[in-house]
Amino acid sequence: MQRINASISVDQRLAVQDVTASRAHCAMLVKQQVISAADGAAIDGGLVHIMGELQAGSFPFRAEYEDIHMNVEARLAELIGPPAGRLHTARSRNDQVATDFRLWTRQACEEAAGAVRGYQCALLDLAAAHASTIMPGFTHLQSAQPVSFAHHLLAYVEMAERDRGRFLDAATRMNECPLGAAALAGTSFDIDRHATAAALGFDRPMANSLDAVSSRDFAIEAVSAAAQCAAHLSRLAEEIVLWVSPAFGFARLSDALTTGSSIMPQKRNPDAAELVRAKTGRINGALIQLLTLMKALPLAYSKDLQEDKPAVFDAFDALELSLAAMTAMVRDLQPNRERMRQMANTGYADATDLADWLVRALGLPFREAHHATGAIVARAETLGLDLAGLSLSEMQRIEPRITAGVYAVLGAQHALASRTSYGGAAPIRVGEQIARWHARVQTEEK
Amino acid sequence: MQRINASISVDQRLAVQDVTASRAHCAMLVKQQVISAADGAAIDGGLVHIMGELQAGSFPFRAEYEDIHMNVEARLAELIGPPAGRLHTARSRNDQVATDFRLWTRQACEEAAGAVRGYQCALLDLAAAHASTIMPGFTHLQSAQPVSFAHHLLAYVEMAERDRGRFLDAATRMNECPLGAAALAGTSFDIDRHATAAALGFDRPMANSLDAVSSRDFAIEAVSAAAQCAAHLSRLAEEIVLWVSPAFGFARLSDALTTGSSIMPQKRNPDAAELVRAKTGRINGALIQLLTLMKALPLAYSKDLQEDKPAVFDAFDALELSLAAMTAMVRDLQPNRERMRQMANTGYADATDLADWLVRALGLPFREAHHATGAIVARAETLGLDLAGLSLSEMQRIEPRITAGVYAVLGAQHALASRTSYGGAAPIRVGEQIARWHARVQTEEK
Amino acid sequence: MQRINASISVDQRLAVQDVTASRAHCAMLVKQQVISAADGAAIDGGLVHIMGELQAGSFPFRAEYEDIHMNVEARLAELIGPPAGRLHTARSRNDQVATDFRLWTRQACEEAAGAVRGYQCALLDLAAAHASTIMPGFTHLQSAQPVSFAHHLLAYVEMAERDRGRFLDAATRMNECPLGAAALAGTSFDIDRHATAAALGFDRPMANSLDAVSSRDFAIEAVSAAAQCAAHLSRLAEEIVLWVSPAFGFARLSDALTTGSSIMPQKRNPDAAELVRAKTGRINGALIQLLTLMKALPLAYSKDLQEDKPAVFDAFDALELSLAAMTAMVRDLQPNRERMRQMANTGYADATDLADWLVRALGLPFREAHHATGAIVARAETLGLDLAGLSLSEMQRIEPRITAGVYAVLGAQHALASRTSYGGAAPIRVGEQIARWHARVQTEEK
Amino acid sequence: MQRINASISVDQRLAVQDVTASRAHCAMLVKQQVISAADGAAIDGGLVHIMGELQAGSFPFRAEYEDIHMNVEARLAELIGPPAGRLHTARSRNDQVATDFRLWTRQACEEAAGAVRGYQCALLDLAAAHASTIMPGFTHLQSAQPVSFAHHLLAYVEMAERDRGRFLDAATRMNECPLGAAALAGTSFDIDRHATAAALGFDRPMANSLDAVSSRDFAIEAVSAAAQCAAHLSRLAEEIVLWVSPAFGFARLSDALTTGSSIMPQKRNPDAAELVRAKTGRINGALIQLLTLMKALPLAYSKDLQEDKPAVFDAFDALELSLAAMTAMVRDLQPNRERMRQMANTGYADATDLADWLVRALGLPFREAHHATGAIVARAETLGLDLAGLSLSEMQRIEPRITAGVYAVLGAQHALASRTSYGGAAPIRVGEQIARWHARVQTEEK
Repeated sequence: MQRINASISVDQRLAVQDVTASRAHCAMLVKQQVISAADGAAIDGGLVHIMGELQAGSFPFRAEYEDIHMNVEARLAELIGPPAGRLHTARSRNDQVATDFRLWTRQACEEAAGAVRGYQCALLDLAAAHASTIMPGFTHLQSAQPVSFAHHLLAYVEMAERDRGRFLDAATRMNECPLGAAALAGTSFDIDRHATAAALGFDRPMANSLDAVSSRDFAIEAVSAAAQCAAHLSRLAEEIVLWVSPAFGFARLSDALTTGSSIMPQKRNPDAAELVRAKTGRINGALIQLLTLMKALPLAYSKDLQEDKPAVFDAFDALELSLAAMTAMVRDLQPNRERMRQMANTGYADATDLADWLVRALGLPFREAHHATGAIVARAETLGLDLAGLSLSEMQRIEPRITAGVYAVLGAQHALASRTSYGGAAPIRVGEQIARWHARVQTEEK
Repeated sequence: MQRINASISVDQRLAVQDVTASRAHCAMLVKQQVISAADGAAIDGGLVHIMGELQAGSFPFRAEYEDIHMNVEARLAELIGPPAGRLHTARSRNDQVATDFRLWTRQACEEAAGAVRGYQCALLDLAAAHASTIMPGFTHLQSAQPVSFAHHLLAYVEMAERDRGRFLDAATRMNECPLGAAALAGTSFDIDRHATAAALGFDRPMANSLDAVSSRDFAIEAVSAAAQCAAHLSRLAEEIVLWVSPAFGFARLSDALTTGSSIMPQKRNPDAAELVRAKTGRINGALIQLLTLMKALPLAYSKDLQEDKPAVFDAFDALELSLAAMTAMVRDLQPNRERMRQMANTGYADATDLADWLVRALGLPFREAHHATGAIVARAETLGLDLAGLSLSEMQRIEPRITAGVYAVLGAQHALASRTSYGGAAPIRVGEQIARWHARVQTEEK
Repeated sequence: MQRINASISVDQRLAVQDVTASRAHCAMLVKQQVISAADGAAIDGGLVHIMGELQAGSFPFRAEYEDIHMNVEARLAELIGPPAGRLHTARSRNDQVATDFRLWTRQACEEAAGAVRGYQCALLDLAAAHASTIMPGFTHLQSAQPVSFAHHLLAYVEMAERDRGRFLDAATRMNECPLGAAALAGTSFDIDRHATAAALGFDRPMANSLDAVSSRDFAIEAVSAAAQCAAHLSRLAEEIVLWVSPAFGFARLSDALTTGSSIMPQKRNPDAAELVRAKTGRINGALIQLLTLMKALPLAYSKDLQEDKPAVFDAFDALELSLAAMTAMVRDLQPNRERMRQMANTGYADATDLADWLVRALGLPFREAHHATGAIVARAETLGLDLAGLSLSEMQRIEPRITAGVYAVLGAQHALASRTSYGGAAPIRVGEQIARWHARVQTEEK
Repeated sequence: MQRINASISVDQRLAVQDVTASRAHCAMLVKQQVISAADGAAIDGGLVHIMGELQAGSFPFRAEYEDIHMNVEARLAELIGPPAGRLHTARSRNDQVATDFRLWTRQACEEAAGAVRGYQCALLDLAAAHASTIMPGFTHLQSAQPVSFAHHLLAYVEMAERDRGRFLDAATRMNECPLGAAALAGTSFDIDRHATAAALGFDRPMANSLDAVSSRDFAIEAVSAAAQCAAHLSRLAEEIVLWVSPAFGFARLSDALTTGSSIMPQKRNPDAAELVRAKTGRINGALIQLLTLMKALPLAYSKDLQEDKPAVFDAFDALELSLAAMTAMVRDLQPNRERMRQMANTGYADATDLADWLVRALGLPFREAHHATGAIVARAETLGLDLAGLSLSEMQRIEPRITAGVYAVLGAQHALASRTSYGGAAPIRVGEQIARWHARVQTEEK
């Protein structure tokens, strides 16, 4: 029973939050004259002392007190004696743990949003250095159309921005204070819940005491945001694994971020990228854990809710590591421009550009343009040439109206430059995307 | 191959979105002079005709065209001939399906938010009728403190409001238009992506073409919101199953919402509540499907993305049914006031009130108050009485300072009335909660 | 990088397995004359010493060696010097960790099967004491037909037996030895993989070296079995929460297995049952973690596989606790015969018996029998009687052919006794079920 | 209510099973003289007629009868009149649906096992043609050591065999008959459950009636097996996507199994492989759906259980498609021997072989051998040579004891041939593996 019931090994991570919330509660009790100023001062002094012990790593966590609240309360009693017993007036462990856990999760969301921003900056810096580095754009991992390395990286900046938004939305939505809901029904003491809410940085107290002690959607939303962020990271992680493989050879990670073999100097195992990819599973698992946990749970507090914390801690630990590892890898990544350019110029990845030119310049209907393009590519293939290398006369044998103007869109570089639609891969558009991001990040920092 | 590849049986649900997006695309192509006004008029006429067929249910879906885009395009060609071939200029099925699917999901989120509001109104109406209906407040399904039925229902109103917020946030975040990203890299045609975005009600075009065709976090976020909403619904569903059970006897559902037995008149199976509870699984499953799908998928478009739609359709179908069923059940539910009151008065659920009174009125320290309360309850139990029935002298034998004032907090009704902290269960507070909600809902409706 | 890469905090749980496998490997290398007898003796002596340190808890785990293999190898070098370097001949960390982890998981499955058997014995003992304790059998949590408490418990014995079967099947299927697969392709040393397999209790060596180092379906299967077992436990946990609630009042748990309130003596919170219910989420989460992890992972070894162990450890820790808690609760549970009997006699739960009797004794077609039963129940309800209390003449007014024989199936006790089909709820059948189980368990123990 | 309650659109897939089980039930009722021979004959005739309608596709499914059982029963009444009412004697929809669904799932498992065997045969045939086709063996997608294409394929044969085992184990464990458990408690009719069990191919009747109607672990186990199989398929699917990418160029799929571009002849999109990879998500989702569904469900039947069927149908539909697509792809795959050989010879993938040779032939300790190997590889790299191309004298400058014998293990082909440990990559071992499999498959077919 004790083994399954004790939570101190897990919830000791809420220690700072617990003391912080207790200090706010104590100050309010004094202000409302629920406890005396003298008792309040003694309690607050004891809590400040405990906070010092926590920061110094000297706080004596003891398994005999099953959870963090009991540990803090017992220590407070040791330190200040009887007044310690007044602290628990007008609250319960139910609203206390809900408050502590919200404080922790709110901070985790904010820190995740910050780490995502750091990751975006790394991507932007790398993109800025590669606005004209051509790489093959893939669909189905087959070369489809040339893009630039910068354009590719910016796609991840966009994804990350939505991830940030989700963390911040979650932090905002959860920013209501459960404290004062007591066990489940509120209390008859004349407390001021708005005061404790404000003191702890919450926007307002929660409006319903049953909801306050029994809801954990804030935790699910935070972990959902983490799972979506991890899914995005796993995509770039996968690409890094591919890019640094000898088959692709698109990029290289330094020794600091790979493990290798003393006897195979070219072997650079992208362990960190693989672990980021794998952490996705852990976060998805945490999400399912929470959703399973909350299914069909009657109000108000049930002990099931104790199992919410390991899932959230696990998910944010995994995410924090993943974001740090990913940021480091992006800062470290050395693309191989030559190899990417060469791959971008194979496979007739500029065929779409030829077809579009026929539509645009000659007014051919789409289907007819496609037909002519197919024939021209076939001819080039027979001759072992790429499209830019095919002579005008060869092209004109298939479609006599073609002019030398067509060469302006052929070859990966030209093809790339032509994709000037908003958000497109053309260097001019990519430069604007980067500039917009720089402006945005700088505005924010002020 | 054809069996695994074809998607028309699923994505035909995007037909209206596909035609709508095509009309916007066509109008923009004309405005930008990419296609002629005459061709544009022919295309638009054809699309209007197709929309009519869709609304009439007479559109000929054909499995030989593997997806909805090909079906619409083929039908358009039948209707208007060669100009149909111009419609696909400057777009690709990749940006097209991303646009259609966003339109669908945005609407699903908005409709879900609307359905949640309807469910909240049902809860509020029931709560308004039961502000003073006492029921036992449970922790661990054990009677803990009396609450009111209204207070209990309001907890669900609060949860639902956060659910609404998540749907609306998701709808807002996804409200960017992929159209014009073409296959993956944008296009060399002089298109106006801001125009199509505006025409389709999007806030702006997506800023990166690779992101536009390969991201599905909007779908994951929408289904995450659905999963959290379903988790909340499952809690009330569970409670309804409990409440209508003979053991609880707290409430009754009418024949319209139960199935029964012709030979056991008292048997009223809460099938709808059970199915709502079960649908949680389906939505959690859809969420895991999407998260698994997106894991480690390289950019840009891969065929894996075709599997995103069944998950989203399934999740929102299940949610829509669940919300409708739940709203109907809340409107139908007939609480048994007498049974709830009786249960609220058993188990010494007012013991906390006695202890709090000792602290508040007599200034006893918390622990001492608890000790005295324990002794008083034990005495009452020995005498077979509840606390309100215990004489003052009996109480004073344990704690001489107790006065007759204590009876003001004893008994479920008094105990309830005393919980006047903000958000607490006291009828006066619950009345305020209901009034705030009424004001909010009415403001919105204007 | 080091933070994300290090695994020693997790995989130190494989220490005993690692040393055991190394000893088998060393013995084989000596036998095959790959290393000298003297080196082999030194290595084995060192490993025996390390095993002693592990058992004494004095082994110096050091984070600077990233995993358990490096820790053991470094310690061995400290203890015996140069010969330590020979141990790693003809193996790799890839086959080493696969072997260690299989050994751990095999044992976990076997221990889980053992714990399930212990849980079954607790259920059987309780059932044996309650073969004639009537309780209402529910469908939809509505009284449907009377069953016995023993019959209800035996349903869980059956479920648990299939759970056991899954653990044992998993243990059998995984019982192949990866050792000797080396990094991925086998080795050119003349090793004897059958010898190491046999020494470690495996049925045979794995037949393909790539499969040996890169497959983890054994872990997924084990956790799947755990998830299914946990789902079954959660059902009984839910029922215990219901049964001990004041509304049901079917049973009572002692203080040892509940937490309570010093001031509310009747409040017995079934925390352990709630935690068992909640652990389901953790195990489902671990399963999803593993399935996500393995999705689309190319052969052979990738670092992703390092994340497999936390999931398996978590799942089996949670299951072990759940089984222990559940066994303790079953042994502790005190059913309230009177309350269950009373509930079984309400709601006309014997109406089916009346209808069946009309079919069986009078030869009425099913529908007609149902019609008559409905009328009789309605009459009884009007009179405020149960069926057994209704006079024969009242019944005959509705169906004249009814005889006094009908009373043999009316009332919960009679109704129960009549369900004599194989596997049915009749005490005679339940007695046989228990006897079969006793025989089975005893046979096994021999 | 009707919308959420009706299941006929889903459970019509159980129609054949429902009629089959009804025929067995009817025959038993006649044998036991519960119904007359005449009624039995009429019922059986009607059921045979209905089976004919089902096979002809002419059975009139009607939504007004909410499920498959009501549809069949109503049709039977139309066909044969009053005797139809006798069929439902001594059974209930609860045991009926449990029986139908087990029959369906048992068959699905058996068919999956068969399809897996077909997939294995395709792998074996391809392997047999490529026992000496060298390819790079990867760890972390970096070249590690040469293997053969056959050896790589055989790893999947092994995985698939364990998948088969899981399907067959599941089919065996679920092979108990619920029929006769009636609503939940058995029946008072003198039925012979062993007879119906035998008639339907079950090993025995289920031993506890409550378990029979309320357990669905058989469905979870079947879907777990499917999820594990899908995870294995997703790995090969991922590899196929990689192999056919221009960066790898290891293999080619024909037009029949790819989609392409009319203007980019080299673009062959491996859509089928991507869809197989994606279906993993669907099956994982179905598994979570079922596990969520069953969590904390009290006995016996609850309506939640109606939601079990879509999950199982979805999972097996997805798996069946995936296995068929994968088998077709394996049969179609054309490896590019030259490209794989070339890649296997880069990156000093034979360095391990050199190090092992130094240990084996010269008796160097492992660490010393590694040191020498590192130096030799570095020298080769400086000279721009591979190891096999490095002169003996160059090697001897680093380690003088090296002899010309070392060349027998250098170069991919020699390195491969040297891995002769059991299960290793050496062609001689791979040949044995294939032979063992051929013998096994042939034995089975007899």
